[in-house]
Amino acid sequence: MSVTNLHGYYLEDISVGMSDSYAKTVTDADVVMMAAISGDTNPVHLNEEFAQETMFKGRIAHGMLSAAFISTVFGTKLPGPGCVYVKQSLNFKAPVRVGDTVWATVTCKDIVPEKGRVVFDTVCTVKGKVVVDGEAVLMVSRRPD
Amino acid sequence: MSVTNLHGYYLEDISVGMSDSYAKTVTDADVVMMAAISGDTNPVHLNEEFAQETMFKGRIAHGMLSAAFISTVFGTKLPGPGCVYVKQSLNFKAPVRVGDTVWATVTCKDIVPEKGRVVFDTVCTVKGKVVVDGEAVLMVSRRPD
Amino acid sequence: MSVTNLHGYYLEDISVGMSDSYAKTVTDADVVMMAAISGDTNPVHLNEEFAQETMFKGRIAHGMLSAAFISTVFGTKLPGPGCVYVKQSLNFKAPVRVGDTVWATVTCKDIVPEKGRVVFDTVCTVKGKVVVDGEAVLMVSRRPD
Amino acid sequence: MSVTNLHGYYLEDISVGMSDSYAKTVTDADVVMMAAISGDTNPVHLNEEFAQETMFKGRIAHGMLSAAFISTVFGTKLPGPGCVYVKQSLNFKAPVRVGDTVWATVTCKDIVPEKGRVVFDTVCTVKGKVVVDGEAVLMVSRRPD
Repeated sequence: MSVTNLHGYYLEDISVGMSDSYAKTVTDADVVMMAAISGDTNPVHLNEEFAQETMFKGRIAHGMLSAAFISTVFGTKLPGPGCVYVKQSLNFKAPVRVGDTVWATVTCKDIVPEKGRVVFDTVCTVKGKVVVDGEAVLMVSRRPD
Repeated sequence: MSVTNLHGYYLEDISVGMSDSYAKTVTDADVVMMAAISGDTNPVHLNEEFAQETMFKGRIAHGMLSAAFISTVFGTKLPGPGCVYVKQSLNFKAPVRVGDTVWATVTCKDIVPEKGRVVFDTVCTVKGKVVVDGEAVLMVSRRPD
Repeated sequence: MSVTNLHGYYLEDISVGMSDSYAKTVTDADVVMMAAISGDTNPVHLNEEFAQETMFKGRIAHGMLSAAFISTVFGTKLPGPGCVYVKQSLNFKAPVRVGDTVWATVTCKDIVPEKGRVVFDTVCTVKGKVVVDGEAVLMVSRRPD
Repeated sequence: MSVTNLHGYYLEDISVGMSDSYAKTVTDADVVMMAAISGDTNPVHLNEEFAQETMFKGRIAHGMLSAAFISTVFGTKLPGPGCVYVKQSLNFKAPVRVGDTVWATVTCKDIVPEKGRVVFDTVCTVKGKVVVDGEAVLMVSRRPD
């Protein structure tokens, strides 16, 4: 078993419309660890008393945690290992709370073969409601000869 | 001390050109925990043998970890607690490696008072070199009467 | 205090029937971190919606987390520091859920002095119910002269 | 995208000889977090001065960390989500150190269709040298009608 066995899709393997997902239930542990590694100790994530006074009426997860689930699909499923993240736009539409199961789905919408670029629609949902959407550009190499 | 003491800048407090930063040295622990909470076990982050064979010639941190540092400035410094993340664009320009100190800086470039929106340039650098840049839109409320 | 003070039992100190335990309540943080360090992001551990559709009717902890508690008894209590793990068999009998307190117990069942080997029965229970059982072989050195 | 999309291989999809791997570079962060969640604070893992005096001449990773990588292949690749871990035997053959990249490989060696059981050879290697080997039994369900 060599490192090439770990490689994901090559450019020739991808077609418009291909889609894949990653989904995870957000726990208190995720929120605490996201605060730990990012340093984002905003009380809306960590302080229930503060968060109760906001428009969210309770603690919410970091938006970048949902964004990270999109990256997980790219890095582990489609295109998978070997791809390079070039761009990502994120529109934060609704909050994610502890206990929510977030589904991150990416769908190929365009391929620019001469540049080795693949464009994806990206969306995160909770029980079917969009919480984050946007678009991503990935660099994907051709299959080696 | 009440929760209102934790609130960051209100819309009236912000002017174009204001800037703030957060910086953190990325360690192996951050990369392992980012893999944990995101589920992104892409071997380019976790497997030195695989990563050596890529264009990066070694393991790199998750791009969303640098992006999270931008969120940290917003959530803890400028505008600080009470703001709402609306949009973020991310252009991944260069890799971040374990041991790099990432500086995330946000600079106010526009204010749309009637909508309560503030637009920021966002950039992450390592030793002065841009690793991620983009733009963000935050919702910031007016100071309560 | 020298490093020899940290050493656990030597072969001469162990007799058949000796037993010790380690017990820990499994939290969401443990499951998230086990996913982190192992890379095992199986949705039965992390995705409540997926897990609800399985025979387990909800998220379960990684089996290797319970197995690790057995290793904890060996590495910290009986025989303790200085022993070498040679073999472990694991029979996964029932799921462990977040909130469960797992008791890992090892009991010496045989000693092979000429090979410096000690055989243990190993069992993990939750409220008295067996969740993992099996057998281990450890290498334990004689007391230095 | 529904939870059924996350399911791995069904019994009908598996044949003798199928194989898959997961590989990860073990970092200090992994060893510290394994100690954290397991409670296994054996100084051979955490105390360089103690470890220098052992036959290993330096700190080694927890054996159950390598074992967990085997579980990762089962839980995420082959058979993948939906399988149930029934048995695992582990023979610890050689130490793993911080910086080593551990490759965990599972290979189907037998299928018992009437019991829904699949037997795998399991091996972990570092630079081609076996560090852990053994055998596993998984329960894999048939494809639903």
